Amino acid sequence: MEKERIILGIDPGTTIMGYGVLRVINRKAEYVALGIINLKSIKNHYLTLKKVFEEVTLLIEKYLPDELAVEAPFFEKNVQSMLKLGRAQGVAITAAITHDIPIAEYAPLKIKMAITGQGRASKEQVANMLCRILKISVSDLPKELDATDGLAAAYCHFLQTNSVVSSAKYKNWKDFVGKNKKKIKN
Amino acid sequence: MEKERIILGIDPGTTIMGYGVLRVINRKAEYVALGIINLKSIKNHYLTLKKVFEEVTLLIEKYLPDELAVEAPFFEKNVQSMLKLGRAQGVAITAAITHDIPIAEYAPLKIKMAITGQGRASKEQVANMLCRILKISVSDLPKELDATDGLAAAYCHFLQTNSVVSSAKYKNWKDFVGKNKKKIKN
Repeated sequence: MEKERIILGIDPGTTIMGYGVLRVINRKAEYVALGIINLKSIKNHYLTLKKVFEEVTLLIEKYLPDELAVEAPFFEKNVQSMLKLGRAQGVAITAAITHDIPIAEYAPLKIKMAITGQGRASKEQVANMLCRILKISVSDLPKELDATDGLAAAYCHFLQTNSVVSSAKYKNWKDFVGKNKKKIKN
Repeated sequence: MEKERIILGIDPGTTIMGYGVLRVINRKAEYVALGIINLKSIKNHYLTLKKVFEEVTLLIEKYLPDELAVEAPFFEKNVQSMLKLGRAQGVAITAAITHDIPIAEYAPLKIKMAITGQGRASKEQVANMLCRILKISVSDLPKELDATDGLAAAYCHFLQTNSVVSSAKYKNWKDFVGKNKKKIKN
């Protein structure tokens, strides 16, 4: 019997950060939680980054995830947006790294493709499909669909790591991080 | 008499991170330390980010800086480099934020201009000028000039905050961070 594992998925934006939590037992994913962290009211860039770090840390301490899945766009309108996004991602990744949690990143297109079969699916289509698969009532969703973006990242990671082959590959990667940890510290 | 303050300057790259430390007493800057953290040997992106976080945290715990000055380029060759750089910056900034240290950022051109009077000065010219101003023996410098880039950021910040007007402006900003800290946490 497979050990239970928890996946935390996040979509780290600079105005809204979405998150979702899945529990995987016997190769099946169960919905645990989802939500958003609203960063719009924080006008200072550093306080936004601080909030991201604190909130991701809280999520990690609350749900004790075994893995973190991050929605990571690799292109943005301009380099300035990319720098800001990179900073928010870097902060969220740090929160996971300092808890020794392995990280997997997925491009938005890959996530949409994995869940709906269409790389160009809308946020609504992704949300609806997730509700059907994970038996979440649509009325329970927060207004901001960034929350389902976080959950979508977690579900995409579940699909990627759920086959026997990919699980083995992923385990090797986790071992790699584990082995290198001490080496890096010294 | 002005209270002594310590400025930590860093140049957070993804292959080499440079740092420099200055002590400011009676509106005069004294050299304390400089060095580099070599990240080239770490092949895993997350382990690089982890190392940056750990090393910046160590520097903060060792030198107890009152302020962090970051060399922050606002443009890069492409969005991919910008994303990576943004992540490294985000991680370094998190280390300061979690210690409630105010951060100031300076573009490379601004730093070069402040120290040499020329925005297009070479790394060597910046290093030589810093050695003259801060009475550092050139033979004491590490081979990698990224170290003096970190020190240059610290010195630029010293110059920016050393006049009566700019000190007052900067103090207000620190107060702003202080006041908003609790608000953000709740």
